[in-house]
Amino acid sequence: MDIKQKIEQANAEAGKRLVAAEPYLVDIAPAGEVIPGMQDKMITHAGPPITWEKMCGAQKGAVIGQVLFEEWAKSYDEAVSILEKGEIKLEPNHHHNAVGPMAGTISISAPVWVVENKAFGNLAYCRQVEGKQQFGNYHEEALEDLRKWRDVWAPTLRKGLKKLGGIDLKPIITQALQMGDELHNRHSASSSLFANKMAVGLAEVDIPKSELLSTLHYITNHNLIFLGLAMACGKAITDPVYNIAYSSIVTAMARNGTEFGIRVSGLGDEWFTAPAPFVEGLYLPGYSEKDAGVDMGDSAIAETVGWGAFTLAGATGILSLVGGTPEEAMAYSREMKTITETSHPTYRMPIFGFEGISIGIDIRKVVQTGTAPIIDTAIAHKEPGYSIIGAGLVRAPMDCFKKALIAFSKKFQSE
Amino acid sequence: MDIKQKIEQANAEAGKRLVAAEPYLVDIAPAGEVIPGMQDKMITHAGPPITWEKMCGAQKGAVIGQVLFEEWAKSYDEAVSILEKGEIKLEPNHHHNAVGPMAGTISISAPVWVVENKAFGNLAYCRQVEGKQQFGNYHEEALEDLRKWRDVWAPTLRKGLKKLGGIDLKPIITQALQMGDELHNRHSASSSLFANKMAVGLAEVDIPKSELLSTLHYITNHNLIFLGLAMACGKAITDPVYNIAYSSIVTAMARNGTEFGIRVSGLGDEWFTAPAPFVEGLYLPGYSEKDAGVDMGDSAIAETVGWGAFTLAGATGILSLVGGTPEEAMAYSREMKTITETSHPTYRMPIFGFEGISIGIDIRKVVQTGTAPIIDTAIAHKEPGYSIIGAGLVRAPMDCFKKALIAFSKKFQSE
Repeated sequence: MDIKQKIEQANAEAGKRLVAAEPYLVDIAPAGEVIPGMQDKMITHAGPPITWEKMCGAQKGAVIGQVLFEEWAKSYDEAVSILEKGEIKLEPNHHHNAVGPMAGTISISAPVWVVENKAFGNLAYCRQVEGKQQFGNYHEEALEDLRKWRDVWAPTLRKGLKKLGGIDLKPIITQALQMGDELHNRHSASSSLFANKMAVGLAEVDIPKSELLSTLHYITNHNLIFLGLAMACGKAITDPVYNIAYSSIVTAMARNGTEFGIRVSGLGDEWFTAPAPFVEGLYLPGYSEKDAGVDMGDSAIAETVGWGAFTLAGATGILSLVGGTPEEAMAYSREMKTITETSHPTYRMPIFGFEGISIGIDIRKVVQTGTAPIIDTAIAHKEPGYSIIGAGLVRAPMDCFKKALIAFSKKFQSE
Repeated sequence: MDIKQKIEQANAEAGKRLVAAEPYLVDIAPAGEVIPGMQDKMITHAGPPITWEKMCGAQKGAVIGQVLFEEWAKSYDEAVSILEKGEIKLEPNHHHNAVGPMAGTISISAPVWVVENKAFGNLAYCRQVEGKQQFGNYHEEALEDLRKWRDVWAPTLRKGLKKLGGIDLKPIITQALQMGDELHNRHSASSSLFANKMAVGLAEVDIPKSELLSTLHYITNHNLIFLGLAMACGKAITDPVYNIAYSSIVTAMARNGTEFGIRVSGLGDEWFTAPAPFVEGLYLPGYSEKDAGVDMGDSAIAETVGWGAFTLAGATGILSLVGGTPEEAMAYSREMKTITETSHPTYRMPIFGFEGISIGIDIRKVVQTGTAPIIDTAIAHKEPGYSIIGAGLVRAPMDCFKKALIAFSKKFQSE
């Protein structure tokens, strides 16, 4: 078998594993209880590895917020001081089977979604999604949401979820993709369907009324709550695809707010990075591109499994958030077919006559066609201390794919 | 002012009233308690007036089911016998500010959705939506659902709704139209959003756990539950548009399974009818067009207010149910612009760059362009005793519009 055939075969196997995934929500638990290697005085973050010094403003702000949330420091100044002294260990979420939106910070007492890929038995984790601290806001208003999630919402949902015996997420994802979600920045349908399921679970257990009502209000009014679940799904779906020799399929795209990094199946855990690009987008009142940080977050795990901007044609409702026209959205989704390995048999797009979504980015195709994956994403401020300021579209940097392809050629063509 | 100007002005007023509507769900109550003129031994039905003898198989089946549900007869034979003797009064829903899906039968003890158009203060009513009795199935399995609705689900929802102080339906409709619903045969989003609202209301009142769980299971697993609400909204939205002198805007399209009838603003309560057409569609396993009855139901009130097939381009997920391609769906929605008065400022279609939906069918434009309104609808069996057998697309008969236009000319041009 020549090298090309070996690659084709390996990529077919990668594609098979991607579409075979069976994601279930099995728990909502404190990170320290479930995430492998999570420890006290550790914060995991979005993107490839990065030091405190090199972090962008938003990620620094979120890390400070996480330190204050854990009460490892009592003030902004104290938090910065212990971070500068290196007293807080900083590691990528991806090194712990985890992902996080935007700055993506996770620490020991923060409850995370736990998703099992039942086809392979692996577990993946994602933190809660909110619009403040994950964008770098470390103020009291932001920390308040983290505490409510930790003290009321997550433990209450955990009880309901246990009663339900977990939730099969594939039917929710399948339906949501036919209801205008693209499962990255638009989760109106998935969040609503998820809340429907949880409402039944919550009604079945005995929960103090104030906690029940607070949690029901939270989940029925949070139209991005499913993003955390979708991201954990994305990680659970891609983790079994690591380390297939000869496979040129991307297993992760993640940004730490400074660098954009990708990982490739045949190349194991290695990161291939390039400077994170600016996002073309729309801004909330009072903000403009002058305020914007660069692309950030593990949330591009969505596009890694064919959601997000890859399925933008089916989610034109999001264009009021990220900008662009329906025609452009269709063109993006069509274009992503040219750089992917396969299409999904269950996740389908009605607007394309129920064609399956495009899944499994092939670094060879990206470089050969000169077509970088398109991602739709939120925008954080370049300075610490702010909530979300906008959203838009961005291309993954071509350099990541070129670097990976060079390493790939070196590793497999020398054999 | 010449006649043309008078018509334009009247139609502008009709359009203004259509878009000014503010539909709220204010109650879920037994028909006898709330529907004007509803009485014992009366069944109201879909479409223009019709006698028992002329009813199609499915509508006969549903009427028999309603008689058995009310226990006005103990058997099929006894039910037919009292119907043949004329002991049950049969009147159109539309004559009672009400609407009903398919056969559309409503009787005194059946709970109905009560929607108030807060912009005008009028109330409208619709029966529950299910897949059996309203299609003509009078068997025990069908009646069981009606009884559960009457005895458990509706009274339980009523308690939750009272606690919530009613539900503003405009935000749900607005969101659902951006989530792949067309609000006639696809209600996946609206039903889910509605169920979440109700879940909070139900959690706030003291309800026996078994009734709470039964009702939560019902509403969170019924992806057409919002159809009954949408139809009541349609009726609540159109009723203030009746009797605007010189207005050629359609105020109702309704079918009794034998005839298709329309009403026109300037022509008051008069029905203009033609034989109901066959529906082009897809059938459930075991059925084909040989089994099909003709077009039936008050549900075309959806298209009367610009939903349903008028917004099919935004709801391509429904094509697996009704047939056709995304391109055809887009063409239908574009075409409906040519026969309508205005577009809605709040109800928008992302796939058309957030254009407002087309609303207010003008009989002049229908006849002048030769373009009949397109409707997507379910299909009932031609014989009594069956549940749903399919769904598809149908054009309103041009003859209704021609007859109405002749009457319109006669009434207003003679002045």
